[in-house]
Amino acid sequence: MARPRKENAIDIKGRAMEIAMDMLSTSPDRLSLLELARRIGCSAPALYAYFNGRDDLLEQLRARAYADLIAQYLEKMDDGAQNPLTRLHRAGLAMVDFAEDRPALYRLIFAPEHDIPEPKIDLNASLLAAISHELAALDCTNQTIRGSVHQLARLMWFTVHGAIMCALDRQLIGPANQRWAQARETVVSCVDMLDLRCAVTPTAQKSSHVIPHIAPFQQSGRASA
Amino acid sequence: MARPRKENAIDIKGRAMEIAMDMLSTSPDRLSLLELARRIGCSAPALYAYFNGRDDLLEQLRARAYADLIAQYLEKMDDGAQNPLTRLHRAGLAMVDFAEDRPALYRLIFAPEHDIPEPKIDLNASLLAAISHELAALDCTNQTIRGSVHQLARLMWFTVHGAIMCALDRQLIGPANQRWAQARETVVSCVDMLDLRCAVTPTAQKSSHVIPHIAPFQQSGRASA
Repeated sequence: MARPRKENAIDIKGRAMEIAMDMLSTSPDRLSLLELARRIGCSAPALYAYFNGRDDLLEQLRARAYADLIAQYLEKMDDGAQNPLTRLHRAGLAMVDFAEDRPALYRLIFAPEHDIPEPKIDLNASLLAAISHELAALDCTNQTIRGSVHQLARLMWFTVHGAIMCALDRQLIGPANQRWAQARETVVSCVDMLDLRCAVTPTAQKSSHVIPHIAPFQQSGRASA
Repeated sequence: MARPRKENAIDIKGRAMEIAMDMLSTSPDRLSLLELARRIGCSAPALYAYFNGRDDLLEQLRARAYADLIAQYLEKMDDGAQNPLTRLHRAGLAMVDFAEDRPALYRLIFAPEHDIPEPKIDLNASLLAAISHELAALDCTNQTIRGSVHQLARLMWFTVHGAIMCALDRQLIGPANQRWAQARETVVSCVDMLDLRCAVTPTAQKSSHVIPHIAPFQQSGRASA
């Protein structure tokens, strides 16, 4: 019987994803399939069996990082708080924490520099759906907020994302801790504005807040860019 | 008398800035001092007399692009409208237009990829000052908006910037025109939220809206990152 080749003996794809994720956090500029193969101890062609080049590797990492982020995000939201405003507040701060702790992963997910033939992550079906779900539990029916719950969810997400990008891109002058403090303050102001506009209904406070099934990835057959 | 060298006969720095700005709009990836020298028709060392490498060139372009953008922005704000909300609305849409028309310049200014030793552009002293000036003219003294005018200005800017970055980075699924429509809609919703909270005072409507002196660039001696 032929001796198994080294490349068949190890879980190349699993190791590649793990090491690449680690490289993204420590030395994102060095992330190439060649360097990855070197660190795994396999040949470069062996990697090409799983990844169709660097962009494909980044896109697969992106999908995994996003799934992790959304899981953390939903967990944070579901952490005992019954008030939708508290939940939105916590979830917003969790996003800022993620970006501060893992800037390269945040960029990979929300501000990718690699070429994406077709966006695979559907914010509407995941992140924005979770925010909309909380907003729907608020009593905002008294015309104080115009437009739909979905529009408002987008407005909140854009605000938090804009604050994070400004902190990451050093668009505000000051040391890093001040920039991140401003991003956190923005989450608070943003939720405060809602607080003044919406009365939390007793129903909303009592509801079990079971978040509906959220599909983080896009279904096929959507309009492409 | 020695014949002037070709390099002395042309305004190298002026031409370099002009051609580089054009390259940024059409082929940003090819922008290098070598390629720039080739297009100007001078030697690469001649360019190094004006730019301390590619990052320095990009930083100088960035300062110029930002000064142009702020001039346009203030002009848009001052375009006859007396109501601060209308003015904020127009200025926000002008930002979205700029980003859609000149994505590489927008990124250069607000999401730079080159290495910036110390941020030169002080958003607080320019963009945020202009927004704060409009907000101060609104009657928001009735406790409906918590925090300072400056905090609120930052909140509005983060919202518009976040929407623009999502449109640029294809974070919303759909063709480009739909993504930009969502960014514009966000500007409208954002100003609408203010509209509901603030009564425009007769004084604000009548004021001549002379915008105070705005210095687009940072003064020395600020805290660095």
